[in-house]
Amino acid sequence: MHRKVTPVILCGGGGKRLWPLSRGQYPKQFLKLTGAWSLLQETALRISDPARFEPPLVIANEDYRFIVSEQLAEIGVPPHAILLEPAARNTAPALAAAAMLIGETAPDALLLVLPSDHLIARSDAFSHSVATATAAAAGDRLVTFGMKPTAPETGYGYIEAGASLAQAPGAHAVDRFVEKPDLATAEGYVASGRYLWNSGMFMFPAALLVEELSSLEPDLAATVAEALAERTVDGDFIRLGARFRDARAVSIDYAVMEKTSRAAVVPGEMSWTDVGSWNALWEVSERDGAGNAVAGEAVLVETRDSYVKSSGPLVALLGVSDLVVVVTDDAVLVTPRRLSQDVRKVVERLEALARPEAEHPRLVYRPWGHYEGIHAGQRYQVKRIFVKPGAQLSLQKHFHRAEHWVVVNGTALVTRDGEQILLRENESTFLPLGCVHRLANPGKIPLTLIEVQSGAYLAEDDIVRLEDSYNRA
Amino acid sequence: MHRKVTPVILCGGGGKRLWPLSRGQYPKQFLKLTGAWSLLQETALRISDPARFEPPLVIANEDYRFIVSEQLAEIGVPPHAILLEPAARNTAPALAAAAMLIGETAPDALLLVLPSDHLIARSDAFSHSVATATAAAAGDRLVTFGMKPTAPETGYGYIEAGASLAQAPGAHAVDRFVEKPDLATAEGYVASGRYLWNSGMFMFPAALLVEELSSLEPDLAATVAEALAERTVDGDFIRLGARFRDARAVSIDYAVMEKTSRAAVVPGEMSWTDVGSWNALWEVSERDGAGNAVAGEAVLVETRDSYVKSSGPLVALLGVSDLVVVVTDDAVLVTPRRLSQDVRKVVERLEALARPEAEHPRLVYRPWGHYEGIHAGQRYQVKRIFVKPGAQLSLQKHFHRAEHWVVVNGTALVTRDGEQILLRENESTFLPLGCVHRLANPGKIPLTLIEVQSGAYLAEDDIVRLEDSYNRA
Repeated sequence: MHRKVTPVILCGGGGKRLWPLSRGQYPKQFLKLTGAWSLLQETALRISDPARFEPPLVIANEDYRFIVSEQLAEIGVPPHAILLEPAARNTAPALAAAAMLIGETAPDALLLVLPSDHLIARSDAFSHSVATATAAAAGDRLVTFGMKPTAPETGYGYIEAGASLAQAPGAHAVDRFVEKPDLATAEGYVASGRYLWNSGMFMFPAALLVEELSSLEPDLAATVAEALAERTVDGDFIRLGARFRDARAVSIDYAVMEKTSRAAVVPGEMSWTDVGSWNALWEVSERDGAGNAVAGEAVLVETRDSYVKSSGPLVALLGVSDLVVVVTDDAVLVTPRRLSQDVRKVVERLEALARPEAEHPRLVYRPWGHYEGIHAGQRYQVKRIFVKPGAQLSLQKHFHRAEHWVVVNGTALVTRDGEQILLRENESTFLPLGCVHRLANPGKIPLTLIEVQSGAYLAEDDIVRLEDSYNRA
Repeated sequence: MHRKVTPVILCGGGGKRLWPLSRGQYPKQFLKLTGAWSLLQETALRISDPARFEPPLVIANEDYRFIVSEQLAEIGVPPHAILLEPAARNTAPALAAAAMLIGETAPDALLLVLPSDHLIARSDAFSHSVATATAAAAGDRLVTFGMKPTAPETGYGYIEAGASLAQAPGAHAVDRFVEKPDLATAEGYVASGRYLWNSGMFMFPAALLVEELSSLEPDLAATVAEALAERTVDGDFIRLGARFRDARAVSIDYAVMEKTSRAAVVPGEMSWTDVGSWNALWEVSERDGAGNAVAGEAVLVETRDSYVKSSGPLVALLGVSDLVVVVTDDAVLVTPRRLSQDVRKVVERLEALARPEAEHPRLVYRPWGHYEGIHAGQRYQVKRIFVKPGAQLSLQKHFHRAEHWVVVNGTALVTRDGEQILLRENESTFLPLGCVHRLANPGKIPLTLIEVQSGAYLAEDDIVRLEDSYNRA
C-alpha cells in the first residue's frame, strides 16, 4: 500500500544560540549556514519529490511569514499553506492544528513532522528512515526518529529503543524517553547501543494523532479545534484564531509520545545535528589541516581548531586556538568553542540593553524584497533597497523625512504625488517630505536603488501606508 | 640665559604594529588612540606654548603631508614648515636636514627632537625634563632623554647614565648605549638603577649637531646639504631634493650619540611608552574591575584582562581573557595580548595577498577633507564625502563612471561643464560620464554629501585632474 506523505515543517526556533547571525527577527532556520540554502530551504528540498511527498504545510510565527514565503519561492517548493500561529504554544498545539487541518481534506494522511532548524548531511539515510517510518505509521504507529548517537551529548534527550516491530522492519517499539542526561549517564547510553538521540522529527497518521490528543489532552484538542474553526485565509497564509493562545503550551513528546502505547522509533544515521551552537557547526564543517573552519574573508596566522565566519569585515586571527569568531556588518562575537552554548548570555545582555543587534538583522526582509542600512549620519541615512521583479512597496508618505532615490541596477516605476515616472540605471528622483509615493519594479530583473534619507527623525515607524499589495496598510 | 627651543617632530613610523587601526597609508602617529587627539597632535600640543617653543618643524613622508597639515590645523598649531623627505633614510639624515635648515636663520637654535608616535601621560614631567635638557644643551651637549624603566622591557634600547653634569643639574654624562637586551639582562639593568630606556627624544644645539655630523659622517652631512640646497617650497611644504635618497640610512644614535664625547642624558618619569603594541596600549589604558580596557561599543560577559577597541561593529566577548580584539569597519583582529607584538605577521600576510586592508584605511584623507566608501555593489558604489569649509576638489572628469551627488549637510558649489550650481541640504545633481566637474564648499560649515557612482570601472585612478588647488593636477 502506497500512501503519500504530507510534510509538516515547524518553523519556530529562536535567535539566540547562533547570534550574531541569528537574530530575534531572523532566527536560525533562515540562515544560510553551510551552503547556498538556508536550513529551512534544505528541509523543504529534502521533501520536494512530488512522487513521494505532498506540498508541505509550514507552521510559522506571523513575524516570519514573508521570509518563509520568499525562501520557499526561491527554491521552487510551493507550500500547501503557511499556517500562522498567533503565539508560540510549543509543538503539541501546533501539530494538533496541522493534523486537524490536513485531516479535513485527507483523513488518511500521514504527517512527516520536520523541524526546520536542523542540519542533515546524509539525505540518503533520511529517505531510508522516512520509508521505514511510513510503513510503521501506516500500521497505526506514532513514529519518532531516533539518531544513533556519535558522542555522549548532554544537550539532547534520548530514546531507549525496544523490540523490533514485525510489520515495519527497521522500526522499534519505544521502551522509554529520557530527558537530557548528565555526562556519565550519556556515556552509559552511548555504550549500551540501545539509546538514540531524540531528533524532534516524527511521522503520524493525522487521524491517529488527533485521536490520541483528544484522549490524552482533551482540553488542548478542543481549544485548537476552535482556533482552527476561527481561521482566516490570506493567500498562502492561514491564520489560526486567537483562541489558539489559550491552548496549553506543551511539547508533543510530553503530551503524547511519552504516554501513548502506539509509539515507535526509527533509528537513523543521517549525520544529524540540531546546530545548537557555533561549536556544533564547527564539528560538521569542512576543516583545514590546522582544524580551522572558515567561511568568509579571513587570514589565520598560527591559529588552530577555530571557527571563523564573516559576512562583513575581514577577520585576522593571530596565535589563537579553539575560538569562535563570527562577524557581521554590525556585530562581532568572540568566544571559546567550548562556551559557544552560552552565547544566549550575550544576547540576553544585549536585550537588557535594548540593543538592536539582539533583535534585528542588518538586512531587513520585506514581501517586496529587502533593504539594509549602509550608513547613518547626523540627520541623514543611506539605505540600499532591493525590489524583486514585479513587486512593489506600499503607497506611502513620511512626515519627517525627504528621500532621494538613485537607481543603480534595473528599472524603477516611481509614483510621486499621482505622477508616474520610469527611472533607469543612473537616474534619480527626489521625494520631498509629505509627498505620497510608491516604488515598484516593473521589470524582469531585480531593481537596486540607493536611498538617501534626510530629516530630523528617520526611524522606520515614520511611515503612513495608504495602500499595500501585501495587506500591511 | 634664555634660549627658545625649536621642536622637530619626526613623523615617520609604520603601519604594522597597531593594525587594523594603523595602515601603511595611515600609520600610528595619526591615530586617536587614547582620546580626542592623535599621537602627533598630542606631541604638537605638548610643545605649543609660544613662550617656550618656536613653531615646530615637522619631518614627514610625502604621502602623509596633507594628514600632517590637517591634524596640525585642527589643534591650531601652525608649523614652522613641513619638511618632506623623498625617501625615508632613518633619523640621522632627517635631523641633519632639520639642523641645517633651522641653522640657516637661527644658528644658535636648540632643537628638541620628538618622535610623534609615542605616548606621554605626564606632561609636567616632560616639561621638567625639557628644562633640564635645555640647560645641558645650552652648555653644548647633545642630550638624549632616558626614561626610568618600570619593567624589564626587551623591546627598548637602554642608556647607562654616568656622572652628574655640574652645569645642568639633573643631567648626566652617558656611560654607554646598549641595544635591546634579553630578559635577564634587562632585569639586571632595571635592578641596577643606573639604566634608562632610550626614548628617541633628543635636544641638540643645531650648530653642534651639524658640526658633529660633519666630523663623524662627512659624506652624509655633505649629501644632506646638497639635498637641502636643491629644496623646493610649496606653501608650508618644503621638499628636499632627490639627492637626499643618497644619504646613508643610519640612526642618529648610531651616527652621533654613541660616538660623540658630548652626549648627555636626562632621566625622566613621564609615563612614557612608544605604544609598540596593542598590549602596550592596554597597559596604559584605564581598566575596569575585571581588567578590561574598552573603547567603542562592546558587551563583555565573563571576560577578563582584555583590550577591546571598535570604531565599527558592536563587539561581544564571552568567556575570554587576556585577549586583544580590535575592530574597524573593514577588519577584525583577534590575538592574545602576549602576542600582540607579532601583529606585523598578520600585516605581512595581508601584504603578500595584496589585500587593501594592509595599506588603506576606510577613511581616506585628502587636502580638501576626506571620504569613505560605505557600500560597493555590482557596477556601483556609494561614498560619503566630507569637504572642509572653503575647500575644493580638483576640476576633474572620469571616463568610466557617472556620479550622483546628494547633499546631506552644508552647501555645495558644483561646477558642471562650465555651469555653476549651488546645492543645499537635500538637493542633488547628476554628473554624466565625461562631464568636467568640480566640488567646492563655499560655506562656513562642513559639507557632507553622498556620492553614488555607476559604471563598469570604479577605481580611484579613473580621474583626470584638469586643475587642482593643492598642486596635484
